[in-house]
Amino acid sequence: MPAETPDGALAPRPLLTADRTVTARRLLASARVPDSPPMPVARVQEWLDERASAGRFQVRPVPFGQLRGWSFGPADGNLRHESGRFFSVEGLRARSDATAGGERCQPIIVQPEIGMLGIVAREIDGVLHFLMQAKMEPGNVNTVQLSPTVQATRSNFTGVHRGRGIPHLALFLSRGRARVLVDVLQSEQADWFLAKRNRNMVVEIAPDDDIEVGEDFRWFTFGQLRTLLLRDNLVNMDSRSILACLPTAGGAPGAPGGDVLRSFYDSEARPRHTEAEFGSWLTGVRAQRELVRRLVPLHEVVTDGWRHDEHEIAHTSGRRFRVMGADITAGNREVSSWSQPLIQPQVPGLMALLVKEIGGTLHALVQARVDVGTLNVAELAPTVHCRPADHAGPDAEPAPPYLTDVVSAPTGRVCYDTVQSEEGGRFYHAQNRYSIVRVPDDFPEETPEDYLWLTLAQLTELLAHGNYLGVELRTLVVCAHTLY
Amino acid sequence: MPAETPDGALAPRPLLTADRTVTARRLLASARVPDSPPMPVARVQEWLDERASAGRFQVRPVPFGQLRGWSFGPADGNLRHESGRFFSVEGLRARSDATAGGERCQPIIVQPEIGMLGIVAREIDGVLHFLMQAKMEPGNVNTVQLSPTVQATRSNFTGVHRGRGIPHLALFLSRGRARVLVDVLQSEQADWFLAKRNRNMVVEIAPDDDIEVGEDFRWFTFGQLRTLLLRDNLVNMDSRSILACLPTAGGAPGAPGGDVLRSFYDSEARPRHTEAEFGSWLTGVRAQRELVRRLVPLHEVVTDGWRHDEHEIAHTSGRRFRVMGADITAGNREVSSWSQPLIQPQVPGLMALLVKEIGGTLHALVQARVDVGTLNVAELAPTVHCRPADHAGPDAEPAPPYLTDVVSAPTGRVCYDTVQSEEGGRFYHAQNRYSIVRVPDDFPEETPEDYLWLTLAQLTELLAHGNYLGVELRTLVVCAHTLY
Repeated sequence: MPAETPDGALAPRPLLTADRTVTARRLLASARVPDSPPMPVARVQEWLDERASAGRFQVRPVPFGQLRGWSFGPADGNLRHESGRFFSVEGLRARSDATAGGERCQPIIVQPEIGMLGIVAREIDGVLHFLMQAKMEPGNVNTVQLSPTVQATRSNFTGVHRGRGIPHLALFLSRGRARVLVDVLQSEQADWFLAKRNRNMVVEIAPDDDIEVGEDFRWFTFGQLRTLLLRDNLVNMDSRSILACLPTAGGAPGAPGGDVLRSFYDSEARPRHTEAEFGSWLTGVRAQRELVRRLVPLHEVVTDGWRHDEHEIAHTSGRRFRVMGADITAGNREVSSWSQPLIQPQVPGLMALLVKEIGGTLHALVQARVDVGTLNVAELAPTVHCRPADHAGPDAEPAPPYLTDVVSAPTGRVCYDTVQSEEGGRFYHAQNRYSIVRVPDDFPEETPEDYLWLTLAQLTELLAHGNYLGVELRTLVVCAHTLY
Repeated sequence: MPAETPDGALAPRPLLTADRTVTARRLLASARVPDSPPMPVARVQEWLDERASAGRFQVRPVPFGQLRGWSFGPADGNLRHESGRFFSVEGLRARSDATAGGERCQPIIVQPEIGMLGIVAREIDGVLHFLMQAKMEPGNVNTVQLSPTVQATRSNFTGVHRGRGIPHLALFLSRGRARVLVDVLQSEQADWFLAKRNRNMVVEIAPDDDIEVGEDFRWFTFGQLRTLLLRDNLVNMDSRSILACLPTAGGAPGAPGGDVLRSFYDSEARPRHTEAEFGSWLTGVRAQRELVRRLVPLHEVVTDGWRHDEHEIAHTSGRRFRVMGADITAGNREVSSWSQPLIQPQVPGLMALLVKEIGGTLHALVQARVDVGTLNVAELAPTVHCRPADHAGPDAEPAPPYLTDVVSAPTGRVCYDTVQSEEGGRFYHAQNRYSIVRVPDDFPEETPEDYLWLTLAQLTELLAHGNYLGVELRTLVVCAHTLY
């Protein structure tokens, strides 16, 4: 029976996998190590700056006509690469009873390929460390951010990119040297992508495995990463997504500690709702909300308020986002220069999680959110997921539930508040404010029907499966690790 | 906060849900009751015949031009209903490295609405009974089959159908009278539907709840249903799908009994692979297999060997399936006469599960199968899922793995073998042979990479989530209940 296909792209199965409870225990131990010699926290910014400067990156917005290899299809106006790979920008017509405004038409990124986002882990002095990469992405506001060990589209690693080999990729694809701590498909921005998923993996190599780590890679404890998550725009979206998927449940059964620690790690902490209640609730939302959508030629978006000129496709309201082109030169990427379209949001978003102690355990209030690109109607999102500018001024849309509770929260109740970037490989200067707000004890537990209180361990257990938690909520889950 | 929307279609959340282990125990108790007075097994066929005759059903194939309310769109040739609801037949162009023949184009049913398939349960004399319906569907070979209590599309219950109210539907949508035993979205035939899902529910009412049961409804123990699953074309596809989702794990911890019972109910039985191994394996298949597809106008299917005349759209090879029209009159449906398109397979399929005792527990060999309509690249399918006629004669496609093991199995090793119908609401005379074959002890445990051995309890636990097990495997899971 075949263990590997001739091109080596398919892994024998199944990979060796670790026990989730044991991983949870080891994650907590790593979380408690605030600094480590391979790359002390105090030196991280200097290292990133140094790598940015060594990379000699230039990102220049260009008119669509100057995008090398990209063009608008003559029949449908879709923006695509001459290879037929990577991604395309098309039109999407969608109708849902869960979103405002009836049927809408908008540009959307179509990327049917499933990419690989992987972090290599290894014990150093008995503590789990994660191999992070100083990586440039064209859309980053600050050029280089702390990225996963591997971040590759299928086109990257099957050769369409004509790039160099991707370091460490083999550790994720072949049985043998590494074992799996995390391996799951997760979604990305459902307002800009049509049902995009990436494979999120963490694999661990032996403590004495001699892996070659170049200048762009350094080992970090989870405690160090917790500190770095307190800084703006430093830990990139893909890293946050993967790290959020690390298991926590059962990592510290019955352990003393605050309610956050209990919510993540204590399997005996009582959640307000059982798994079965959660499942039935989400099934109900997915079944009863309507989401009907259809790809249409990109040129149809002009029928719904989008303007298309040589520099951008943008909404005439000045809201939403714009499609633009960029030309990139880089010294240390797989290929040294390329062009691509990028999506730029017009205003920053606010992603906020309300948390509350219920029965001695911290619970987070999540919503089942329908977006035009969601694979399966709805996924879990932060309590508040919006662009505040859309809900102010003339033509303001009605404010979503709980927005007021977030923006008017007293400083003392805001326990996390940073600006984080979305994926710089597709989005240009896309920054959102991520906040966690602890509400008072008398805050009502009753919620609108699309909202539910869950513990942090319930969320990390759901992350063993794909397409339950959207990418913005995954960021808030990993950011919640900064609260203990 | 809103508990119910004005139209009453949205339920307050979450519904009351039962503990899965307790349900598993009660299911096993019901499985052990082979007959019950409300409808003795010996009288079932007579009752179904009587209901069929009372219904005065007539199903008549008609040319497309005689379908009332349905027509081919002038621009795209898509076959759709004048209301814009129900479903449409469109073209799908799909490419996958997992299926033969490169890019293919075929007709496909597009039905973005999520329907409701629900069974009401209730204790009678302390034993769980399920309320089944004698229901006619136009595509049934035998007119009436044993169907769920409720089987309704969203169009049915939001009024587009202009039909009468659907009995018992409210029990599934509103909190109060019933509690939930099963509630999950599951997929249907991925070679004929584009990413269709239905909500599969079992709700239980109190033993003394006075529910009105008309002539079309009767209560059955799970033991009775096990017996009826041994008969051809009796328990309909939707019933099989829902019943398969009933939890079994932990229902009889450490209990004596055969290896099938242990495989379903004993939580201490050791599976060959952990949940984490399963997750990583399926993620690997979904990430590494390519599935790229796009809806196209139905008239494009003629470019790939499909012929379209006034009576059918059929493949010129004589294989695959045909799209046809039917006119239906019925005395006891929500509306008394209607027209609709149906899909008719050209040859029956074979759905077979190899099972084998590994470490004292029965394991089933499942494959991660990519079909053109699968929501998320691949779902679990029977060991063998094929149309045997496609692999015989001239132009035969290569036989899939394990087909020989099934067709050449000695009679003594075939422990289940019946013909079951697929959904008669969309498919005309669609019958498949469902087999379970026990392989010898020396049968190799090594498999091709897209195959994995799982216990029956692992399968029923996965059924707490949507889109892991395809509909054909769900049928085989419920049929495996006949083996103990």
